Amino acid sequence: MNPIGNLNKVFESRIRLGVMSVLMVNEEVSFNDLKEMLEVTDGNLASHLGTLEENAYIKVHKGFIGRKTNTTYSITKTGEKAFKGHLAALEAMIKFSQ
Amino acid sequence: MNPIGNLNKVFESRIRLGVMSVLMVNEEVSFNDLKEMLEVTDGNLASHLGTLEENAYIKVHKGFIGRKTNTTYSITKTGEKAFKGHLAALEAMIKFSQ
Repeated sequence: MNPIGNLNKVFESRIRLGVMSVLMVNEEVSFNDLKEMLEVTDGNLASHLGTLEENAYIKVHKGFIGRKTNTTYSITKTGEKAFKGHLAALEAMIKFSQ
Repeated sequence: MNPIGNLNKVFESRIRLGVMSVLMVNEEVSFNDLKEMLEVTDGNLASHLGTLEENAYIKVHKGFIGRKTNTTYSITKTGEKAFKGHLAALEAMIKFSQ
């Protein structure tokens, strides 16, 4: 059995793992809230969000609070399915290692 | 709570995760056996083994079978401790996401 057979390459980054786990349990989360929760820089977060968006794992919503732009993110059905698969593969690897 | 707070950056690669999980449950494993189990190329495996060795998470043993060189790898105490910490952090992230 290949202990890493079903791991998803897109989730090979801690920050992308973090984004997906936050979006699994929150309807919509703003860029700033994600940045605070995951303790990452703007640039770092933006590039990882871009990769997740390209893979259609998350959706971007451009809104306004007063006259200030407010960008929020939510997980897609595809993203949820892919991430659940990755978590199951991680659990299998953890079991393999014990 | 930062869902990725305690994840170890060294284990941010599927292949390094795979090497560590195999070495957690095997005394010593040869380069070729690792390559077969993880379904990776020579170059890819060699570079990830190098990173794990630099972090003192694995040890290299240069031996011979007949006149053929036989290189094997084993996990270090430091590696075992670091990987167990990473697995615990992954489990916490998985719980956070459900």
